[in-house]
Amino acid sequence: VTCAEATVLVNGRPGGVVEVLERGLHFGDGLFETIACLKGRARFLSLHLERLQQGCGRLRIGFEGWGLLRTEVEAMAAGAAGPAILKLLLSRGPATARGYAARGDEVATRILLRQPWPADDPALGREGINARIGTLRLGENPALAGMKHLNRLEQVLARAEWQAQDIHESLLFSSSGRLISGTMTNVFLVRNGGLLTPRLDRCGVQGVMRRVIMREAREAGLSMRETELFAADLAVAEEVFLTNARVGLWPVRTLDGRQLGGPGPVTRRLQARLGPLLETPVDA
Amino acid sequence: VTCAEATVLVNGRPGGVVEVLERGLHFGDGLFETIACLKGRARFLSLHLERLQQGCGRLRIGFEGWGLLRTEVEAMAAGAAGPAILKLLLSRGPATARGYAARGDEVATRILLRQPWPADDPALGREGINARIGTLRLGENPALAGMKHLNRLEQVLARAEWQAQDIHESLLFSSSGRLISGTMTNVFLVRNGGLLTPRLDRCGVQGVMRRVIMREAREAGLSMRETELFAADLAVAEEVFLTNARVGLWPVRTLDGRQLGGPGPVTRRLQARLGPLLETPVDA
Repeated sequence: VTCAEATVLVNGRPGGVVEVLERGLHFGDGLFETIACLKGRARFLSLHLERLQQGCGRLRIGFEGWGLLRTEVEAMAAGAAGPAILKLLLSRGPATARGYAARGDEVATRILLRQPWPADDPALGREGINARIGTLRLGENPALAGMKHLNRLEQVLARAEWQAQDIHESLLFSSSGRLISGTMTNVFLVRNGGLLTPRLDRCGVQGVMRRVIMREAREAGLSMRETELFAADLAVAEEVFLTNARVGLWPVRTLDGRQLGGPGPVTRRLQARLGPLLETPVDA
Repeated sequence: VTCAEATVLVNGRPGGVVEVLERGLHFGDGLFETIACLKGRARFLSLHLERLQQGCGRLRIGFEGWGLLRTEVEAMAAGAAGPAILKLLLSRGPATARGYAARGDEVATRILLRQPWPADDPALGREGINARIGTLRLGENPALAGMKHLNRLEQVLARAEWQAQDIHESLLFSSSGRLISGTMTNVFLVRNGGLLTPRLDRCGVQGVMRRVIMREAREAGLSMRETELFAADLAVAEEVFLTNARVGLWPVRTLDGRQLGGPGPVTRRLQARLGPLLETPVDA
């Protein structure tokens, strides 16, 4: 991927650069969304924009161009020649003063980056992936928990722990030993036929696909609980799967080499329900 | 501050922009230094470059142009018309692939930003500052602790907790209740005439001025210990002071409105020792 291979809009204008004083660069002072674009449409766009808006509220980023932003995303999705991934990055904007303090007169910078959908192995969704347990433990900070903000060094370091092509994701625990997520996915466990997913009030990202899965599970009449989960819960899970906006749902086939079996009945049931939503993109 | 008021070099060339794929922007995947420039010289430059190099090692940022970088910083310091602050930002560089994984073929981006020294109140160093106790608690992650990396949302949020002009800094604790630092300063306590400063193995930044103070204290024959400190230690401290590369040493005069008295004898002794080093900039 280079700038040449990506389609880029910065504040509505084509271009491949941002100002050097950008607070997103200096402090990671901003948020992002990764949006799947299929058949010319941005999948779950309203959910993405809703999360972004919540993040802006929490960080007090005074962005107001939501209608314009939606229009730009929709146009960029419509202009894609094939399946694409759209990364939307919203930074507080170029600094208007030295230091950490935001003065409140910053003008947020919106960046849209569209790239072709990476060549996925379709077997991963059908047969499941190989996961490992990460060594790095995520720091806990309720003030940042849940947001898809730009402070992602933990994910960069966690992703650097393995190079093997046939390992697809790491599961991460927090400093207090709570199971949180993958490096780029949310995690669900099946126990007694019901679904469990980590509460994300200490760290982690409230994924859009996580939200969709939780909704679909409940509508399917499955038990679905957000709760505190630990290594012991992972060890006894009947099924484990991972989710994100791009891959949808990835069953975990092996964990640190231990066979978990193929996708179990709850996973398959959710996949069947999710399939049409993912293939014919809906807005919310 | 705008780009127009700052002197900027990006990879050795004048310019006010960086590539939109910059990993520093997307993930905070990089490091920075804030260097005081006085009388045409970059103060403690070797200590700054040493810390930056250690950070690159820990993040596996494969930057090798250390001689060139030093030359650029020295030239920029020499070109300043008066006292200036130089911010040196080193990012892993523009992404060469999608996602968190660094492929290893990234070319690091170096950014130098020189701005006039802000109008400080010189009384702050003589008479002391007003500090408060911050509400936000810093997350703990040994993998990131000590580095001056670009993931600074915690500092942005902590700095947003107060607006009063006569409050100069917040003291921050970590999620487990350990005293760590200010939002932009390191902290020292005096107890029984000896110096204590928080160990920074869970979070916090290993400040260059902190290192200088620790060295000077030891050379002055003062007891000087890095240790775990809690609110109770702060409550019984005889003297409290804060340090960073720009301000040098700030005595804390009041803490959440409680009078700590003027700069105490240990603080004054260190200030006297530090003064010549700060005014006639030395390299290390």
